[in-house]
Amino acid sequence: MAKPWATFGVDLHLEPTGGGIRRGLTDALREAVRTGRLAPGTRLPSSRSLAADLGIARNTVADAYADLVAEGWLTARQGSGTRVATGHAATGSVAAGPVAVGRVAAGAPPTPSGQRAGTAVPPTGTAPRSRPPGQPTHNLVPGTPDLASFPRAQWLKAARRALATAPYQALDYGDPRGRVELRTALAGYLSRARGVRADPEHILICAGFSQGLRLLGAALRARGARTVAVESYGLDVHWNLLAAAGLRTVPLPFDERGTDPGELTDQDAVLLTPAHQFPMGGTLHRDRRSAVVEWARRTGGLVIEDDYDGEFRYDRQPVGALQGLDPDHVVHAGTASKSLAPGLRLGWLVLPPGLMEEVLRAKGGIDACGSLDQLTLAEFLTSGAYDRHVRAARLRYRRRRDTLVAELARRAPRVHATGIAAGLHVVLRLPPGTEQPALRAAAWQGLAVHGLHRYQHPQASVERRDALVVGYGTPPDHAWSGALEALCAVLPE
Amino acid sequence: MAKPWATFGVDLHLEPTGGGIRRGLTDALREAVRTGRLAPGTRLPSSRSLAADLGIARNTVADAYADLVAEGWLTARQGSGTRVATGHAATGSVAAGPVAVGRVAAGAPPTPSGQRAGTAVPPTGTAPRSRPPGQPTHNLVPGTPDLASFPRAQWLKAARRALATAPYQALDYGDPRGRVELRTALAGYLSRARGVRADPEHILICAGFSQGLRLLGAALRARGARTVAVESYGLDVHWNLLAAAGLRTVPLPFDERGTDPGELTDQDAVLLTPAHQFPMGGTLHRDRRSAVVEWARRTGGLVIEDDYDGEFRYDRQPVGALQGLDPDHVVHAGTASKSLAPGLRLGWLVLPPGLMEEVLRAKGGIDACGSLDQLTLAEFLTSGAYDRHVRAARLRYRRRRDTLVAELARRAPRVHATGIAAGLHVVLRLPPGTEQPALRAAAWQGLAVHGLHRYQHPQASVERRDALVVGYGTPPDHAWSGALEALCAVLPE
Repeated sequence: MAKPWATFGVDLHLEPTGGGIRRGLTDALREAVRTGRLAPGTRLPSSRSLAADLGIARNTVADAYADLVAEGWLTARQGSGTRVATGHAATGSVAAGPVAVGRVAAGAPPTPSGQRAGTAVPPTGTAPRSRPPGQPTHNLVPGTPDLASFPRAQWLKAARRALATAPYQALDYGDPRGRVELRTALAGYLSRARGVRADPEHILICAGFSQGLRLLGAALRARGARTVAVESYGLDVHWNLLAAAGLRTVPLPFDERGTDPGELTDQDAVLLTPAHQFPMGGTLHRDRRSAVVEWARRTGGLVIEDDYDGEFRYDRQPVGALQGLDPDHVVHAGTASKSLAPGLRLGWLVLPPGLMEEVLRAKGGIDACGSLDQLTLAEFLTSGAYDRHVRAARLRYRRRRDTLVAELARRAPRVHATGIAAGLHVVLRLPPGTEQPALRAAAWQGLAVHGLHRYQHPQASVERRDALVVGYGTPPDHAWSGALEALCAVLPE
Repeated sequence: MAKPWATFGVDLHLEPTGGGIRRGLTDALREAVRTGRLAPGTRLPSSRSLAADLGIARNTVADAYADLVAEGWLTARQGSGTRVATGHAATGSVAAGPVAVGRVAAGAPPTPSGQRAGTAVPPTGTAPRSRPPGQPTHNLVPGTPDLASFPRAQWLKAARRALATAPYQALDYGDPRGRVELRTALAGYLSRARGVRADPEHILICAGFSQGLRLLGAALRARGARTVAVESYGLDVHWNLLAAAGLRTVPLPFDERGTDPGELTDQDAVLLTPAHQFPMGGTLHRDRRSAVVEWARRTGGLVIEDDYDGEFRYDRQPVGALQGLDPDHVVHAGTASKSLAPGLRLGWLVLPPGLMEEVLRAKGGIDACGSLDQLTLAEFLTSGAYDRHVRAARLRYRRRRDTLVAELARRAPRVHATGIAAGLHVVLRLPPGTEQPALRAAAWQGLAVHGLHRYQHPQASVERRDALVVGYGTPPDHAWSGALEALCAVLPE
């Protein structure tokens, strides 16, 4: 155990913790990174030498490294070996997980945990939502992952295993919080991947973030809440859900550092997308993260963290969940809608301890999600299939984003991709006055894409920004280059 | 059950608390002594006679007595039998004690198309629902099919085929009415199997009947409704769901011909189980069927037909759906919870044409059910697997019912199975005054079963009926004969 570890100048005491050598090694390495015992940038020994040193198979080490790369704790580059990812400095006592050193990158983009803006709720409650009769040829509407890449075979395999092992009682009416197997798997995943402080007892499975937000709205209203602060840019379906619960939404100011929590006063709650503002694409500045939590502590307000695409960051380790800063005042909301597919209708809330009771009351005590899908997702998570899928998806979306940015530079130099390199969408800033012409041109091209204006809260006082919100994650692989071509064709030169 | 307890001159209502017969008996006796219901010096029945009375082993009683002697609550002396120790007088006002009148503590409660009565909503919203620590040995709580017979292999096969053939768009946010494949398959099935006049355009997929009823309640309330007529016997979860939507429930009279719609006047809607009254087990008389539809036409009221187990009739062709008489005024509600499993969370509403829009508005425009489960059920229906499964299940349940009726005739001639030969449960009429003793005996036996009283609407003016509601569909095959044996042991001879 001596040699390779000695290169770190620290005795790591990596002791596999049971549950298999690979799992034990992975856990031990993750813990070493998390706690800062392995500093950011540190180069790890080769899998061959570490395997020899530990007396285990080389593949086991390689697999453990791969898992941790997938989770974002390590990076692997041709020629530079495997290193501890930067941006993992353990920060004081809060260091529950990958706490990011949060500078808002100059530009860059993404998507939300609800769904497509403006499409989910029938306009005035008339016709059910459906695609317009003329299907667009190209689809760059944000809010959906590449559904053609849904891992069908792996999902079926997980379903088979779940069906084969579930006790028959799992088919009964269930715990209204959702299946314990899934809540347990999520607690582990969210802790290591997003720095969430999660206990299965405080996790609620819901039919996507929309059901989660609806329940939170009802619970807030039942305790007398009237007002929820939201971001200047966001999803009308979310505002509508809160309004339907009897809550008024008031937008917070937005500037080049993102959403400004300075105007938080006596609102009862605030709904935020801290890791990746939707749609604008920045991260919430660390000072503002602190300010939000301070506000919640001071006033008893509730922070709702919509972490819709936290898995997808391309340039560095994702910003850790805001919930990690204060699990007593922050609801962490996640979803399988971006990482897998919206059609699964599976989301989750990690609730402050006292809130579960109120949310369950709003839910009527009934589990809304099918137990087989829940068991399948649990199996998918614990088997590692989820991490592998996310890793592959991250690579796919990252490549698309890189291609998009390169094409823009070449063909539309007046158009700028903004926001961080993350997620499934990007905001393209356009020269003033060109958003509407671009949207009209897109419609002619059979290209479905959204203008920024539809994501602006009606009461937001923000300067007019001309921009497109481009969901580069949406098309299947075979349709991506055609969609990109159509996009470039409608952008101002 | 009379003799030994008569020596106390008091009905003890000993309620076993789960955790086994001996433990339950010990706890119950200790509590009776502690609260003063068994006065110091009282002589207890011999272990032999108490055992005979409760239908449990003599050793169990002897062990319980021994435990309590060891703890000092009882004394045992040669020649003077077992007595309550002196010095245990109940202290002050606390002594009055919880004299329990008939809540069965041990069992997990029951069901209809909603789910288990009285369990779905956490008591005062405190702890999430879960089974009590002491699982009953035998489960005859109504409301669940035999989950051990869920057709796992066939379901998986259908899931594989659904996954293999679904377009990737099926994984997207979907039509808020549910997948068209499932709505189409259901329209065909409901038409041929239940005489429903169904158009896929007017079918709404929902997360079980509970979500369907919640949506109907919200839609009714939104159009100004205040009152829904219900049956004198039914499920409190349904009444609670309607109450949560702001609707008052008023029970209709019930007589030997079933629910009497004669008192329908200006109520806004009526909730009925026409094919198989839950839990009483009759069908709605044809004159009354007509009267309900007449009322709806005359007043514009809405009829909600809860067709929770319409597939399971054993003596003849099932009564057709009421909806077939007037699709413009009747909502037909069905569920996979009885025919397959509640854990699927799949139900459906066949709505009058004008109502879809209002229900979708209540739903917020979002599909709540996973699309893979919906596609799988669609495949299950169209491939004929559903029919084959229902046929096999029908045979299984019919045999159980026949065996039950035969055993009753032989061993408990004063007990009568009532209602039609159908469904997954039967109401056993008992001699007056014997429901509570039977429930207590059942609890001691580790037999979970329900008394009729818990299904009675609080405002219902019906004569007191002593009866058990027996879910013979609930246990797995291997546990059925043991459960039946336990049931016979607790019935009055």
